[in-house]
Amino acid sequence: MDTEKFYSKLGAGYQPGVLTTVVLAAEELKRQGKKIIGLTGGMYDEESFPWREVKEIFDEATEADWRVMLQYGGTRGYQPLREELAKWMKGHGITVDPFKELMITTGSQEALDLMARIFLDKDDVIIVGSPTYLSALTAFQTSSPDIREAKLDKDGMIPEELEKVVKQVQSEGKMVKFVYIIPSFQNPMSSMLTMERRKKIIELANKYDFLILEDNPYGYISFEGPMPTPLKGLDTEGRVIYTSTFSKIVSPGMRIGWLAANPEFIMKMAEAKSSTIISNALPSQYAAAKLFERGDVDKQIEKMKKVYIKKRDVMLEAMDTYFPKEAKWNSPKGGLFLWVELPESVNATELLMEAVKRGVAYIPGSNFYTTPTHNHIRLNYSHPSIDDIVEGIKILGGLLKEQM
Amino acid sequence: MDTEKFYSKLGAGYQPGVLTTVVLAAEELKRQGKKIIGLTGGMYDEESFPWREVKEIFDEATEADWRVMLQYGGTRGYQPLREELAKWMKGHGITVDPFKELMITTGSQEALDLMARIFLDKDDVIIVGSPTYLSALTAFQTSSPDIREAKLDKDGMIPEELEKVVKQVQSEGKMVKFVYIIPSFQNPMSSMLTMERRKKIIELANKYDFLILEDNPYGYISFEGPMPTPLKGLDTEGRVIYTSTFSKIVSPGMRIGWLAANPEFIMKMAEAKSSTIISNALPSQYAAAKLFERGDVDKQIEKMKKVYIKKRDVMLEAMDTYFPKEAKWNSPKGGLFLWVELPESVNATELLMEAVKRGVAYIPGSNFYTTPTHNHIRLNYSHPSIDDIVEGIKILGGLLKEQM
Repeated sequence: MDTEKFYSKLGAGYQPGVLTTVVLAAEELKRQGKKIIGLTGGMYDEESFPWREVKEIFDEATEADWRVMLQYGGTRGYQPLREELAKWMKGHGITVDPFKELMITTGSQEALDLMARIFLDKDDVIIVGSPTYLSALTAFQTSSPDIREAKLDKDGMIPEELEKVVKQVQSEGKMVKFVYIIPSFQNPMSSMLTMERRKKIIELANKYDFLILEDNPYGYISFEGPMPTPLKGLDTEGRVIYTSTFSKIVSPGMRIGWLAANPEFIMKMAEAKSSTIISNALPSQYAAAKLFERGDVDKQIEKMKKVYIKKRDVMLEAMDTYFPKEAKWNSPKGGLFLWVELPESVNATELLMEAVKRGVAYIPGSNFYTTPTHNHIRLNYSHPSIDDIVEGIKILGGLLKEQM
Repeated sequence: MDTEKFYSKLGAGYQPGVLTTVVLAAEELKRQGKKIIGLTGGMYDEESFPWREVKEIFDEATEADWRVMLQYGGTRGYQPLREELAKWMKGHGITVDPFKELMITTGSQEALDLMARIFLDKDDVIIVGSPTYLSALTAFQTSSPDIREAKLDKDGMIPEELEKVVKQVQSEGKMVKFVYIIPSFQNPMSSMLTMERRKKIIELANKYDFLILEDNPYGYISFEGPMPTPLKGLDTEGRVIYTSTFSKIVSPGMRIGWLAANPEFIMKMAEAKSSTIISNALPSQYAAAKLFERGDVDKQIEKMKKVYIKKRDVMLEAMDTYFPKEAKWNSPKGGLFLWVELPESVNATELLMEAVKRGVAYIPGSNFYTTPTHNHIRLNYSHPSIDDIVEGIKILGGLLKEQM
């Protein structure tokens, strides 16, 4: 059977990406008994899961609770979870109606997918940070939009750069549908958008009439003082669509995310979801609601900050020791990632397979851009053990020094 | 803010459907203290959930198990669940490689959504039964395909009718991408495709070179003898993509479904899923694997058969007593639904709101067709209590008699 003719344009394009290829190569090496240290995805610290709390919650659930957990649930999500979330978000600068302005998603990834469905037709213009979260790009690309990039620096997206791109788009007679932004501990740069820039970007949205998709998985993990008010908390016109997730603060495996937006957008998202996955798994939603109710979420965040500060410090110290002096990197004040700039002569994408063969994996920076780049790498410090961080950085540093 | 201009074509079309409208009306009436008996969705019998088993499974889980449940999981699903499923499916006539030919989905709804993504561009031709599952239609319509209908009778899809439609499509110079079929206790008619027809439809797929999407949520709930071999078990060319779900046999709230297909299709589906929801919630997948391992799934199916036979019988008896003699219906040998044909003069869609006001809701048959129809209704007997079945049928029968 010739299969090619059956695929949609989207389906034809799906091939195992560079990351899948590396994952498969790493799995093969592991099968051969080799150890591969992953400094790759934003996975959770294995030792720190609130598993006793979740176990206790399921243990204390009554028959009536189980009947709810095992039956179909609403597309917008388990109502007690939405109510807990609304209360919790209020403490972080965002006021939403849990009935009309909030829905539960499968991590924040589902929110990105719903955005593509609801807002994007082929060639519609959106603007993303340069660089930005790689799986946001693949989610949006499902609708084949025209993706423009606005530059970031250590203080996040540069409003003047954003305005320049918006003006350029409008001068072509096109509209900007939305700007995708990760204001707090941006992925991959871990930059923090200043309050001044937050206000400026909201002003631009109002002036030039575009929407904002604010993705905030990392903001709650702030090592020095509280997270600044999210854009959603500064929005007076209902332009900001906000998404966040349990994945970095409590558990990725529960697949709990949320989406806050004006009631009309939420209605559209819920209609879309009714034909994709109908609802999130209820046992996870039930446990999430109880974790909020018991105060376990806030406790867990405080715990994770300490774990991640320690791991960040170990990684920074190892890099000082083992990395070539030509490499430059930041010292993140939150989030899970370090962003490394290598000399122009080094191709981090080509180097990855050799790194894996030597026992360490990272994400090449090219995955975070829509335009070709080659000399950045993103390193994750949340998942590897302290010992593996030191060992992984030592191997990678050695390889990089050979390239200088 | 004018929101209309921001939507995609798909997003602009999302409005609360007739079902959402009725659900909202019913909720409003409930708030006013009125009881509404739902003979609507294919929900599970409230009394029968295997909640003690699920609770026990979580209670016995070790710290190592919880670390797996709370961490990110693979896009294709929890490996022990795929292995259990492969073993279990083998007992039902389907042999698959759990590593390469199987993935876990969020109910079978996600499988339908992935089919639309991977295979359908605008105006691509697919063929569905007439009538067919309403949420399959909405999932496919996401890609704006050209949906053709092939007639069904009490023995399921009529191969001669299907061949006629395929020939018509090919005579237009177009190809059929896939045929969507629910062979066993079809939704909404509860018809059973005969073995002769199963073989004939596989022959047609091979001869005319199309794929088959086999949706099998109900086949395991067979009241009289075992389910016939699924089309997937008869397929020798890798043309059949098979999906099934926990939703009717164990629990809808766990959101466990699965998709079996040739390795290339599974690879494409997994790549697509990595940008939509990444993976299913792990706690549900872990519990599902254990339910299979412990033999609880088979026990539960035997239990549910008895519950549903009893409820079907109560509904049939009540209909004999209260329904007008002009109405015709089937006596299902499995599944969850009764399909009622009313005289041409009755408009079941228009009648629904009046029925809700009197305290009973059903699904108008028009939702199961792409072509306009009006004189069918689908009744569900799995979810309402025995008393509510009798009461609901009495109210509905009275209303229908007034229309004759």
